[in-house]
Amino acid sequence: MIGYGFMGRAHSNAYKRLNDFFPLDHRVVLQVACARNAEKVKAFADNWGYSRVETDWKKVIEAPDVDVVDICTPNDTHQEIAIAAAKAGKMILCEKPLARTVAEAEPMVEAVEKAGVANMVWFNYRRVPAITLAKQLIDEGRIGRPFHMRSNFLQDWTISADLPQGGAGLWRLDVAAAGSGVTGDLLAHNIDTAMWLNGPITRVTAKTETFIKERPHVLTGKVEKVGIDDACLFICEFANGSLGLFESTRYARGHKALKTFELNGADGSVAFNLEEMEYLDFFEYKQSSGETAESHVRGWRRIHVTNGEHPYMDRYWVPGLVIGYEHTFINALADFVRGIESGKHTQPNFRDALQTQKVCEAVLESGKTGQWVSTGVSA
Amino acid sequence: MIGYGFMGRAHSNAYKRLNDFFPLDHRVVLQVACARNAEKVKAFADNWGYSRVETDWKKVIEAPDVDVVDICTPNDTHQEIAIAAAKAGKMILCEKPLARTVAEAEPMVEAVEKAGVANMVWFNYRRVPAITLAKQLIDEGRIGRPFHMRSNFLQDWTISADLPQGGAGLWRLDVAAAGSGVTGDLLAHNIDTAMWLNGPITRVTAKTETFIKERPHVLTGKVEKVGIDDACLFICEFANGSLGLFESTRYARGHKALKTFELNGADGSVAFNLEEMEYLDFFEYKQSSGETAESHVRGWRRIHVTNGEHPYMDRYWVPGLVIGYEHTFINALADFVRGIESGKHTQPNFRDALQTQKVCEAVLESGKTGQWVSTGVSA
Amino acid sequence: MIGYGFMGRAHSNAYKRLNDFFPLDHRVVLQVACARNAEKVKAFADNWGYSRVETDWKKVIEAPDVDVVDICTPNDTHQEIAIAAAKAGKMILCEKPLARTVAEAEPMVEAVEKAGVANMVWFNYRRVPAITLAKQLIDEGRIGRPFHMRSNFLQDWTISADLPQGGAGLWRLDVAAAGSGVTGDLLAHNIDTAMWLNGPITRVTAKTETFIKERPHVLTGKVEKVGIDDACLFICEFANGSLGLFESTRYARGHKALKTFELNGADGSVAFNLEEMEYLDFFEYKQSSGETAESHVRGWRRIHVTNGEHPYMDRYWVPGLVIGYEHTFINALADFVRGIESGKHTQPNFRDALQTQKVCEAVLESGKTGQWVSTGVSA
Amino acid sequence: MIGYGFMGRAHSNAYKRLNDFFPLDHRVVLQVACARNAEKVKAFADNWGYSRVETDWKKVIEAPDVDVVDICTPNDTHQEIAIAAAKAGKMILCEKPLARTVAEAEPMVEAVEKAGVANMVWFNYRRVPAITLAKQLIDEGRIGRPFHMRSNFLQDWTISADLPQGGAGLWRLDVAAAGSGVTGDLLAHNIDTAMWLNGPITRVTAKTETFIKERPHVLTGKVEKVGIDDACLFICEFANGSLGLFESTRYARGHKALKTFELNGADGSVAFNLEEMEYLDFFEYKQSSGETAESHVRGWRRIHVTNGEHPYMDRYWVPGLVIGYEHTFINALADFVRGIESGKHTQPNFRDALQTQKVCEAVLESGKTGQWVSTGVSA
Repeated sequence: MIGYGFMGRAHSNAYKRLNDFFPLDHRVVLQVACARNAEKVKAFADNWGYSRVETDWKKVIEAPDVDVVDICTPNDTHQEIAIAAAKAGKMILCEKPLARTVAEAEPMVEAVEKAGVANMVWFNYRRVPAITLAKQLIDEGRIGRPFHMRSNFLQDWTISADLPQGGAGLWRLDVAAAGSGVTGDLLAHNIDTAMWLNGPITRVTAKTETFIKERPHVLTGKVEKVGIDDACLFICEFANGSLGLFESTRYARGHKALKTFELNGADGSVAFNLEEMEYLDFFEYKQSSGETAESHVRGWRRIHVTNGEHPYMDRYWVPGLVIGYEHTFINALADFVRGIESGKHTQPNFRDALQTQKVCEAVLESGKTGQWVSTGVSA
Repeated sequence: MIGYGFMGRAHSNAYKRLNDFFPLDHRVVLQVACARNAEKVKAFADNWGYSRVETDWKKVIEAPDVDVVDICTPNDTHQEIAIAAAKAGKMILCEKPLARTVAEAEPMVEAVEKAGVANMVWFNYRRVPAITLAKQLIDEGRIGRPFHMRSNFLQDWTISADLPQGGAGLWRLDVAAAGSGVTGDLLAHNIDTAMWLNGPITRVTAKTETFIKERPHVLTGKVEKVGIDDACLFICEFANGSLGLFESTRYARGHKALKTFELNGADGSVAFNLEEMEYLDFFEYKQSSGETAESHVRGWRRIHVTNGEHPYMDRYWVPGLVIGYEHTFINALADFVRGIESGKHTQPNFRDALQTQKVCEAVLESGKTGQWVSTGVSA
Repeated sequence: MIGYGFMGRAHSNAYKRLNDFFPLDHRVVLQVACARNAEKVKAFADNWGYSRVETDWKKVIEAPDVDVVDICTPNDTHQEIAIAAAKAGKMILCEKPLARTVAEAEPMVEAVEKAGVANMVWFNYRRVPAITLAKQLIDEGRIGRPFHMRSNFLQDWTISADLPQGGAGLWRLDVAAAGSGVTGDLLAHNIDTAMWLNGPITRVTAKTETFIKERPHVLTGKVEKVGIDDACLFICEFANGSLGLFESTRYARGHKALKTFELNGADGSVAFNLEEMEYLDFFEYKQSSGETAESHVRGWRRIHVTNGEHPYMDRYWVPGLVIGYEHTFINALADFVRGIESGKHTQPNFRDALQTQKVCEAVLESGKTGQWVSTGVSA
Repeated sequence: MIGYGFMGRAHSNAYKRLNDFFPLDHRVVLQVACARNAEKVKAFADNWGYSRVETDWKKVIEAPDVDVVDICTPNDTHQEIAIAAAKAGKMILCEKPLARTVAEAEPMVEAVEKAGVANMVWFNYRRVPAITLAKQLIDEGRIGRPFHMRSNFLQDWTISADLPQGGAGLWRLDVAAAGSGVTGDLLAHNIDTAMWLNGPITRVTAKTETFIKERPHVLTGKVEKVGIDDACLFICEFANGSLGLFESTRYARGHKALKTFELNGADGSVAFNLEEMEYLDFFEYKQSSGETAESHVRGWRRIHVTNGEHPYMDRYWVPGLVIGYEHTFINALADFVRGIESGKHTQPNFRDALQTQKVCEAVLESGKTGQWVSTGVSA
């Protein structure tokens, strides 16, 4: 484990709990936690039960008793660590976004593919049971020809102008570390989900905005220009002919983690909202038998995705009892391990994440030029 | 039209609008408005377009140009007017509850049946399209063996101890005029709906409460003991073996007209809430084909009851556009007129309303004695 | 009344009911209904109580007993009728959109302003009590610096390829009659609401799409190219620096009239959904006293907009009882008449509607060119 | 740990995770898992990391390396184990209900109090952050004089007549093992929550029902009379003068774990639903300043109980990200350990649970006799 921030905690929790819930041939052993601050990483390791600590990530990469490296550091460090880890033959789990730019990401993909190591990027929301169920309903043909997808990720935690950029917990506001603002941090999730559910996004037109133009920088101690996008809105075309509408911001008062999507097709629609992640809303126009559903009883169904027959839910409690945010990481990890055990590696891997990176980059470019931009992603 | 209060307005509106929306052989003519206060009834009649006014209801009953009498006066006057109107051969529409007591109500039923005049009691909520749809789903066999019904009518407008009892608009707080409090005013609606949907209520055990024990009385000018029930809760048995749970109060802070019901059967459930009356919630366990619905897509459906194929809705606007409270009266009136025109009289008539009165009376008696009481209502 | 379609009904209903609910110095008299089809307009007039019919709208314009002309015909006829009516000195109520294009609309504005006649365009949704309340909350300073507005109008009624374009009830699919598709029909409403609440929209970038490329044309009997936009999505800048995101379609399976908006400001947010129009959702971050609200009790409030202190609601029933779609027209009409009586004319008038037309036109142009387009609307 | 069923899993998970999230002076060590089936308890112990297994619970009680005993066995065994554990000086955590009857429970209370050992009963729902927040709002005086409480626990998993009684996972249907049906299993939770929030329940009148009269018994292999209550409804009086209405059933089609409550007071109301446990709904009538809230912005607030200032939530993730069912056990355990460390023992202890047992027993008695029954619980 390299890094010990919010994601370091979330992933560590997943490692510790994986074998409690999922029957697998392998058991996770928490070997090393690594970060530059020796004191803090020691406390982190003690809390989560890592056997030892390091302050130089290269030591982790070289360690013969390490099979898997998890990269939870800020985005600007992903590339160097990942390529070194690949060369060392380690399996790699990398926090999203894969990198700051496509240019940074491409060599990472090459490295893992050349090394032939198992790899995954932590787009954990694919493993929300309700979202996995949405994928299942689509694969069952219940949505039909898709027309529209809309997806938001709305937060409100940076409205105060007093909030600094950079520093512990706030590197996401520092463009040098993060690469971008909401586009890489939040929309990357929505884009990953969207392309998983609805296929490639081919063209985009976007608007980005930085509402607070200057903020104190923790590292320099000065008020500096803010380089990230506070908000990003884009319209897109999917390869399948449907239209997309995406919005992300940290200035939507009243929303803390309102990650949503809705997909409308000729035969049905699905909708999801992370703040009440136990539900999937589903509108069925055509019944599975092929018959049109009786029109007087049509309506949006709130599926409480907690039954044993719902994705992942047979591993947890009983119908009606909800799991939470953290279980998405456990589920993802289970899929990763099952992929290794079965030889059918799970997704999204580095190459999948590169597609999302391309869309993000096209979005950011369009935000600058005001033009439609092709993403270069294809089916 | 005898009376000009809140219900006088609601009914008058229905009379004026009936022929705008429903194709019928007859047209409503607003002939006479009657109330003791000459000035006020004149203003009322002018507003709604009644041709003339009277201050003595007996003049209305005797008037040869009056075919239908609508009784919108306080409950203590229903009996005398209704019996006189029946004797005069008038059709009668009577506001609910039918009377203050079963003893008052029974001669009214006898009178209309003996006279053979068309009669209806304004349990208008049967004509909320969503509730009518619930009835339809039950009749289609979608609920199966019923186990439970629960139903509330929660308000919060009498919490202030300063509110007087009696007087204009407040006769509902005066037991002499109203007969009872929430039991006759609110629960009567729920009981009517419940027995329409789920059959006779046979036994009850109840708790009634008066939270504010004394209130100024407008008519006497003194602080007097409050005789009505501020709240009423009861458990009941239905003839079909299912169990009911009812609650009404005017002390549920935050609720203005939260009239709800939910019916659970072996094959499905329906739920309704008057504050968002455009919806019916429906859970389907067994599909109409007889097959069990695929379990991973089961969920409560929010049916937006505004389509042309929904009850009454073909008479109004287009799908998605809601109608309101007042339309329940128009729909009820349409059914009444269609009943006359077709010879198949609509419900609930006086006899139906007597059954509801019996349940109310059993509830009030149980509230006093603490014992289970048989209602005397049978299938 | 010129026209007798869906809007002819909705407006007629408003005229008939205005004086029942609103105390005004003037009473509406339904003088003439006019349409080319003599038989149909006769039936319409009989139903709604118009004194006489005409088949030539010029007769209506010339009639000395007509004070107000209501234009409910397809969009391609608005200009000619409106200019003639203005010249004849009639007050004018015109259905939205004002015209098919800005070029058509501008002479209309000139005509009414030159003639000095009262005029209003039926953007009725401003008069949904919940939307009027949103305006009030904004004017009270409860939202603070605005950052984001998003607004949808989603329907699903044209998904079937069998639906013809043109003809009775379907002229909205015929570009010659309608001028555009969802942009003029649906987004015009959202734009009007948005600019009323959040000020001028200055720049837009849009995507328009026609999913079904050809449809049978009822008038020609042939399968013809569809000229309207089936869907329209746009991103915009408001003059106040906030960002907007709009979407409209008739291909969103499961939605019948999902007109929504949400406005996020530094101090609070409001959200609305027409399908449950009795609610306004409000998130208050800063309390009116200027103090920050206690953070542990913050949440989105569902305001059930049915109290006497809510806009327009003192004219109808009692708290908790909902009104419907049709009442927005009554409310608008009341404002129009009160405007005339008070000398302070109501909005939106033709000039206001021209601003919306300009935004629509910029959107359609951007949909063609893929470029950002300035609307020419200013504060 | 004695027992390895559903609760054995839920508690084990809590033990393993406690120190990951809560800073405490003590660390949990999973010493022994015990059950009669040696093979199954071995698998259970391996999965959750218990050091060793036993098949005789007396061995656990006697073990010198065991400080705390957790009783997760069926209800008929609670008494014997608990009294023995108390005598052995062990701290005790006992699954609810405390016992099958008051007569069984009383000696348990005496035993732990005589032994002076720390003790807690797993009424875990008090530790749902939203419910703890409700308690906080009540303690802050935001609800005012209470009038009404209503509370449901609705499930639908025993509707099928094919389901056997008794045996693994189904002992809850066997009256010998469970003592009662939904009353002890489900309503005990609601009663505990209700008395925590609203004080003692003093009198009850109840209706119990067994819909499926006979079921195959797994242990005997015969079809036997069902002795449990499938459903239980009761009305009650609280010592503070408010009225309660409770319902529980396993026959409410469409509900899996719909545990709800709503409390209405003069100054405000709170409402909760376990199926979306991340929310607390709160209606504030009187603002904290003592001023009446501005009436046009009043509404039910959906508080998304995931902020750092909400109970327990500072220990988990970031605002907007939900925790789940299992965290209620971690939170409860943290309170238990903090209670021991601080010397201020947490609740509910055995004595508190005895009060709930008394109410359950009064409810069951009333279900048999049809009379109002005093609970014997006082303030």
